[in-house]
Amino acid sequence: MDNFSSKLLEAAVNEFATLPGIGRKSALRLVLHMIKQDQSRVDSFAESLLRLKREAKECKQCHNLSDTEICEICASPHRDEHILCVVEDIRDVMAIENTNQFRGKYHILGGKISPMEGIGPADLHIESLLARLAAGEVKEVILALSSTTEGETTNFYLYKKLGNLDLSVSTIARGVSFGDELEYADEITLGRSILNRVPYRAGN
Amino acid sequence: MDNFSSKLLEAAVNEFATLPGIGRKSALRLVLHMIKQDQSRVDSFAESLLRLKREAKECKQCHNLSDTEICEICASPHRDEHILCVVEDIRDVMAIENTNQFRGKYHILGGKISPMEGIGPADLHIESLLARLAAGEVKEVILALSSTTEGETTNFYLYKKLGNLDLSVSTIARGVSFGDELEYADEITLGRSILNRVPYRAGN
Repeated sequence: MDNFSSKLLEAAVNEFATLPGIGRKSALRLVLHMIKQDQSRVDSFAESLLRLKREAKECKQCHNLSDTEICEICASPHRDEHILCVVEDIRDVMAIENTNQFRGKYHILGGKISPMEGIGPADLHIESLLARLAAGEVKEVILALSSTTEGETTNFYLYKKLGNLDLSVSTIARGVSFGDELEYADEITLGRSILNRVPYRAGN
Repeated sequence: MDNFSSKLLEAAVNEFATLPGIGRKSALRLVLHMIKQDQSRVDSFAESLLRLKREAKECKQCHNLSDTEICEICASPHRDEHILCVVEDIRDVMAIENTNQFRGKYHILGGKISPMEGIGPADLHIESLLARLAAGEVKEVILALSSTTEGETTNFYLYKKLGNLDLSVSTIARGVSFGDELEYADEITLGRSILNRVPYRAGN
């Protein structure tokens, strides 16, 4: 992989190989694909990235990626401002939005507390969360963090911080996935799903 | 995956998702990685692609990707111009160069004959190959195409075209890979490796 016939090719492959999960062989494949495209296609590829980096903003309220100072969800009069869902990153917002089950607003932490990676509470958007809550509109906070050690640590930290405020704090339900066979569920998930059982309702 | 909070983000994800082997989830992951980088990193990523597309050339002799009109290998006085290795694309040149076993020159066809994909001889750099051979310098042509049906078809087509010329035509050896157990080799490869056996030489 070191016998490049073109320095320009090598430079582009080196750039692509910095992307996560893209090795040098994949990078070469992607670059050779790009070079076969029309000039206008390559221009629009590069331009889309440059425009995103130059023009996209972080929403001042929820820290979501946005084309405007305040994102569409925060600005929408149709979203319930009394319920706030706290998530790690913008992909979680997209995943929850895709369910069409949540009509409240979001707050993006930008990660989770991880002593191993040197990420403490001060590195996350927790101050701005507390500021939003201090305004008094929010009545319920849903913690929708991943169920890893770091996620649980962050949940616990936030729960302690929010405990004094006049609002209810919940976490999303964990359990056996819909459509999954019980025998294939891992023991912790199955155990928790029994402990956290809910009253039976037909069709739910 | 359709609830983008930013049109700019969506546009960039759409561009990345056109790359081969990159789905929309991977595209989002790559774009979110890029947006976390410094402006200068994003600029150099985009610029490397634009420069490659704008400035890289196809070598006029061998059709390799090159920064100059004639590529380094074709221009080199240290390469044997009597032996020409015919390959499908520039990745094959890189693979053979990495072996350090070939000191001749190359000719890149740009693909192989594939009636299924509508690729005929006229779509490949066969005319320019015949023109190079007509110059009379080349004494041996090595066909180093992949051993698929299309590769064999292309081999056969070229062999018929080259048969009248005063030069020897060979194909690269096929057989059981070095280090491989015989019991795991596929039957065709093992059968061919017996038919095409070579005189024993110690250390080879």
